[in-house]
Amino acid sequence: MSRSPGRKQENHKISRELFVLTYGALVAQLCKDYEKDEDVNACLDRMGYSIGIRLIDDFLARSAVKKCRSYSETADMIAQVAFKMYLGVTPSVSCSSATGNEFSLILDKNPLVDFVEELPAERASLCYCNLLCGVIRGALEMVHLAAEVSFLQDRLKGDAVTEIGITFLRKPEDRKHRR
Amino acid sequence: MSRSPGRKQENHKISRELFVLTYGALVAQLCKDYEKDEDVNACLDRMGYSIGIRLIDDFLARSAVKKCRSYSETADMIAQVAFKMYLGVTPSVSCSSATGNEFSLILDKNPLVDFVEELPAERASLCYCNLLCGVIRGALEMVHLAAEVSFLQDRLKGDAVTEIGITFLRKPEDRKHRR
Repeated sequence: MSRSPGRKQENHKISRELFVLTYGALVAQLCKDYEKDEDVNACLDRMGYSIGIRLIDDFLARSAVKKCRSYSETADMIAQVAFKMYLGVTPSVSCSSATGNEFSLILDKNPLVDFVEELPAERASLCYCNLLCGVIRGALEMVHLAAEVSFLQDRLKGDAVTEIGITFLRKPEDRKHRR
Repeated sequence: MSRSPGRKQENHKISRELFVLTYGALVAQLCKDYEKDEDVNACLDRMGYSIGIRLIDDFLARSAVKKCRSYSETADMIAQVAFKMYLGVTPSVSCSSATGNEFSLILDKNPLVDFVEELPAERASLCYCNLLCGVIRGALEMVHLAAEVSFLQDRLKGDAVTEIGITFLRKPEDRKHRR
């Protein structure tokens, strides 16, 4: 007795809840492993970096985006294409420096914390979603863009929004944008 | 300078690759934490169970499925609705016992191992995807169905397919199916 479903083309789209809960299990495990929040944050960033340098190929293949011609276009691409594709949300983007190399991604709602009520008191310095910073940093590095990426605000810590800061490290006139 | 994207209704659909890579980071971390494969497998199962007992609400709300009237319907539901929703694939289902309480979900392709080439030689007993067994077990328990769930075959270990076995523990005549 075997029933084969009407098999459609393989679909890469999934509901994000299993991902969000699995991410929570990962953070919880790291909190068991490391006493200091800083060590958990660093570990999440490292893991994210390793993910980002692999995810970029998937992103470029699936998104079929064109080469970005400015940091501003790159920041928009991250927010409007990559976040949408991998987290199902679209942060707004703002440029936060006169030199044009610092950007903020503002998330009104952060899906990764859907099942998190608040950080425990003893984990006040935890950057719960720090994996994302590593992912962005790793992916950018693979397209020859060095960047610093970190959380500037976090609703989990009582801020009004969640804000990820991206600082591109090369000056605009030096840059060689490849996709 | 702030650009707000054309904001659509929030979308729960995401591409699964970030999830798959994040799951890989979780398994790698557990392999660092535990020397024995059996301990990693047990930990993944426990984590999955905790996820399943939370995910079931999301599943029932989002899928709007009707109450299942038999183990067979339940197994089909897991394969055709839940797997599709959370992993983007639809295993085929077969009933593997005359008593009608043992089912196999057969995955020709397991998306969770997309980025995994093979298990390292020293991790030959690792059930890489064991989280899934825990998720199914936990979710079933929340709808009052006790079950044993485990991998029977695994392509990562050289088997032709990946097969998850589900054994419902109550006899058909005793059961009270609720959703």
